[in-house]
Amino acid sequence: MTTDHHAFPEYHQTATNFGSRMAELRRDPLVQRWVIISDKRGKRPSDFKRTQSSKEEDIKQGPCAFCPGFEEGTGPETFAVREGGEPNASDWRVRVIVNKFPAVSQDFPCGSAVGEGTVFGECRLPAFGSHEVVIETPNHDTPFVDLPVSHICDVLKAYQERMKIFRKDSRFKFCQVFKNRGNKAGASMTHSHSQILALPIITHNSEDELRGAKEYYDTNGERCIFCDIVAHETVSKIRIIDENEQFITLTPYAPRFPYEVWLIPKRHSSNYESVDKDELQSMAAILKLILQKMDVAFSQPPFNYVIQTAPLDPANWDLPYYHWYLRLVPHLVTLGGFELGSGCYINPVGPEKAAEFLRNIKLS
Amino acid sequence: MTTDHHAFPEYHQTATNFGSRMAELRRDPLVQRWVIISDKRGKRPSDFKRTQSSKEEDIKQGPCAFCPGFEEGTGPETFAVREGGEPNASDWRVRVIVNKFPAVSQDFPCGSAVGEGTVFGECRLPAFGSHEVVIETPNHDTPFVDLPVSHICDVLKAYQERMKIFRKDSRFKFCQVFKNRGNKAGASMTHSHSQILALPIITHNSEDELRGAKEYYDTNGERCIFCDIVAHETVSKIRIIDENEQFITLTPYAPRFPYEVWLIPKRHSSNYESVDKDELQSMAAILKLILQKMDVAFSQPPFNYVIQTAPLDPANWDLPYYHWYLRLVPHLVTLGGFELGSGCYINPVGPEKAAEFLRNIKLS
Repeated sequence: MTTDHHAFPEYHQTATNFGSRMAELRRDPLVQRWVIISDKRGKRPSDFKRTQSSKEEDIKQGPCAFCPGFEEGTGPETFAVREGGEPNASDWRVRVIVNKFPAVSQDFPCGSAVGEGTVFGECRLPAFGSHEVVIETPNHDTPFVDLPVSHICDVLKAYQERMKIFRKDSRFKFCQVFKNRGNKAGASMTHSHSQILALPIITHNSEDELRGAKEYYDTNGERCIFCDIVAHETVSKIRIIDENEQFITLTPYAPRFPYEVWLIPKRHSSNYESVDKDELQSMAAILKLILQKMDVAFSQPPFNYVIQTAPLDPANWDLPYYHWYLRLVPHLVTLGGFELGSGCYINPVGPEKAAEFLRNIKLS
Repeated sequence: MTTDHHAFPEYHQTATNFGSRMAELRRDPLVQRWVIISDKRGKRPSDFKRTQSSKEEDIKQGPCAFCPGFEEGTGPETFAVREGGEPNASDWRVRVIVNKFPAVSQDFPCGSAVGEGTVFGECRLPAFGSHEVVIETPNHDTPFVDLPVSHICDVLKAYQERMKIFRKDSRFKFCQVFKNRGNKAGASMTHSHSQILALPIITHNSEDELRGAKEYYDTNGERCIFCDIVAHETVSKIRIIDENEQFITLTPYAPRFPYEVWLIPKRHSSNYESVDKDELQSMAAILKLILQKMDVAFSQPPFNYVIQTAPLDPANWDLPYYHWYLRLVPHLVTLGGFELGSGCYINPVGPEKAAEFLRNIKLS
């Protein structure tokens, strides 16, 4: 949890060099997952740029069900940022609704797990949960990245407000905020939006991350691995993209995907809801910046971002060993059987090269 | 490791029914990963059928570098099935070569892990390994599924032969056999082929599966979870697709993907190389059958299959708690941020419905 740089005698070293263009295996320090960094083929950033026709796949003309004027037809509104108007009025800037085609629903009972045969254990639950859509702007054609920082801040605030509600309800154990932009990243609507899923169980990745973070904490004198990463990277600088007073964007040490970026708060906190008003402004600014860079670099690529935060139950509030962060992944490669079978990913761009490239993009 | 049905007093029950069209959460008994089975939206198999234009994406006219006559230009040949000819002669039926654009390579040293800063531990290795391509037929345009059973058997044998070589070399710890068919499943070549990657580390999924299988074994009176699944499913029948004397195809209890299929040997063995000649014939027959069914059902979908087998080191030979199997996943859906963030998958088709549909396909 400290950011004491003296704990890192190696900080002044650059990455060990196995020789130019030698591919390498790297293990993620959090979940211990090996990846193959294979930039031998010499892919340049421009090799990942989209063509005009691939961009056209993403466009559906408005108006759509998320546009103002269609409020009565959506799922119920659960939160909105508007100037004093009534629920369902069309004067909103950001609007959160229940997904009309939800993967999980509060219409189902929140039951106990039941079994099916000894072999499966107690392994079935009704799909109780909440699946909400955050409509990020009333304008059908405005990409998220073009919203002013203050408006992006409203969106980030909306995530928090919903999460606070879910946390008060003991039936919910876990909440995933995510954004899909573009067909290939799983978005079926063009109108800029993100989603929030709250579930009565803790998911696989969250368990993996919590276990890894706890192990690091226990074996490293009660230090948070994310705080240690921020401290190390801030000094080494080779994987840093941008930085402001409160946040840092960097490429992780063992990324699964080319140009994968993590946005990490410098202040330790395991819970995204704990981010205060000033910090949200700062987060919105650095998020906008990295998304602008992605758009310039790869020609408005499809992307996902996800907010990784501690589970919802009170036992997971203010954990000393976990640290919330936002993970951003542009969709630039196709996964295959190797990744499916092994869980090991082949990444054609090393994180140091990716960070250097993204760091040096100048926005006009 | 027993297949004693009496151990399953619940075997005569059908799946607990939460009510028609209620979505549910299910936990995989092997790796404890929750998935959301959400067939509420009522997707029918025909909704996943490909259009003509999506099929055209997969076609590249021959001849290509994998065709006969181009042997000298490929990476070195490591194994072939041919009628007595010389290496590199064009009379092969199946040919294994070193990938010319490998993700890992034996040209790199097999070194010890080195560190980079306290926070990352010893987490970097040169990308030593072997990346081979199995060219499954000399005919550029013949899909794998159209090969005779005896020819598919040659391909399955080739995987074994290479695995045996890797197992003799203590530098290799893990081997992944996988096949990508179609652009969207990660294939860059049309000519029917699969791949074998051997690595000096054990991958994330393999560790997950071994840990899960060991836990089940230890807490269930030294029983193999796969043997127990086969015994349960053979009697319950709701997730069985096809069966012959030695193998079974079924949909797993908590599948991540719609129409995901597991091909499991009835005889317990943790190692794919242990499959004998008769069993390989039987495996080839049931593999061809399920691939034919997929082609009819979804109009030659892109797919991956992977062979999950125990790690290569001698300590992992003939494990009582692990059981090799083949996993087949047609590419019918697009993943998004939810899956990326949570590791939980939304599957729009329940495995019982998927199995029923695949079971009832009649091939003319």
